[in-house]
Amino acid sequence: MADINAIAKQFTDFYYQTFDTNRAGLQSLYRDQSMLSWEGSPLVGANSITEKLTSLPFSKVQHKVTTLDAQPSSPTVASLIVSVTGLLVVDDSPNPLQFSQVFQLIPDGSSYYVYNDIFRLNYA
Amino acid sequence: MADINAIAKQFTDFYYQTFDTNRAGLQSLYRDQSMLSWEGSPLVGANSITEKLTSLPFSKVQHKVTTLDAQPSSPTVASLIVSVTGLLVVDDSPNPLQFSQVFQLIPDGSSYYVYNDIFRLNYA
Repeated sequence: MADINAIAKQFTDFYYQTFDTNRAGLQSLYRDQSMLSWEGSPLVGANSITEKLTSLPFSKVQHKVTTLDAQPSSPTVASLIVSVTGLLVVDDSPNPLQFSQVFQLIPDGSSYYVYNDIFRLNYA
Repeated sequence: MADINAIAKQFTDFYYQTFDTNRAGLQSLYRDQSMLSWEGSPLVGANSITEKLTSLPFSKVQHKVTTLDAQPSSPTVASLIVSVTGLLVVDDSPNPLQFSQVFQLIPDGSSYYVYNDIFRLNYA
């Protein structure tokens, strides 16, 4: 599963760097059929998802990944499930928030797009 | 997505109740091709997975689900991704542990089996 883990690492590095510096740039990772559940709110499609992500009410955010796991999600297609837990530092708050996020990535030419995306903050 | 959420609720109710009362009973939910990542350790197949789960070093455990999200994981098959966050009370400890768990469920006749399972404790 070395390749799977390398793909997951490359994807999450790019995803969180883009989220933290240029949220609108995430749109290219989603398609019309992509789904996002953001704190329980369901959204479908790259446009709706990007609108949600760019309207989140914080001006500065930093993701710090704590754990990263990946598994193949299909016996026939090179898709994968990526599960992330980590910390979210919002607007330089000294109290980072714990988060959990799950992606399913589907191959698309030489790259991948996000078919599933589920994000949750974890309150203690 | 009402059906999806109902299936996810029914599955997680059964899964955690079985985990907390009769861990060996989880074997019927996995198949030869099922994968489990348990705190970063990869296991494949119902036998290996059940052996891992039944050998975990706690005698009493209780899962309390905090959040539950589900999405269809394929445009062609009625499979779903289920993402759970919650608390784990181990051996009556007064300090529950936070956990994140992701399943992909694949339809199998009138029921489902677990194709993907990723479990992580979240340390603050």
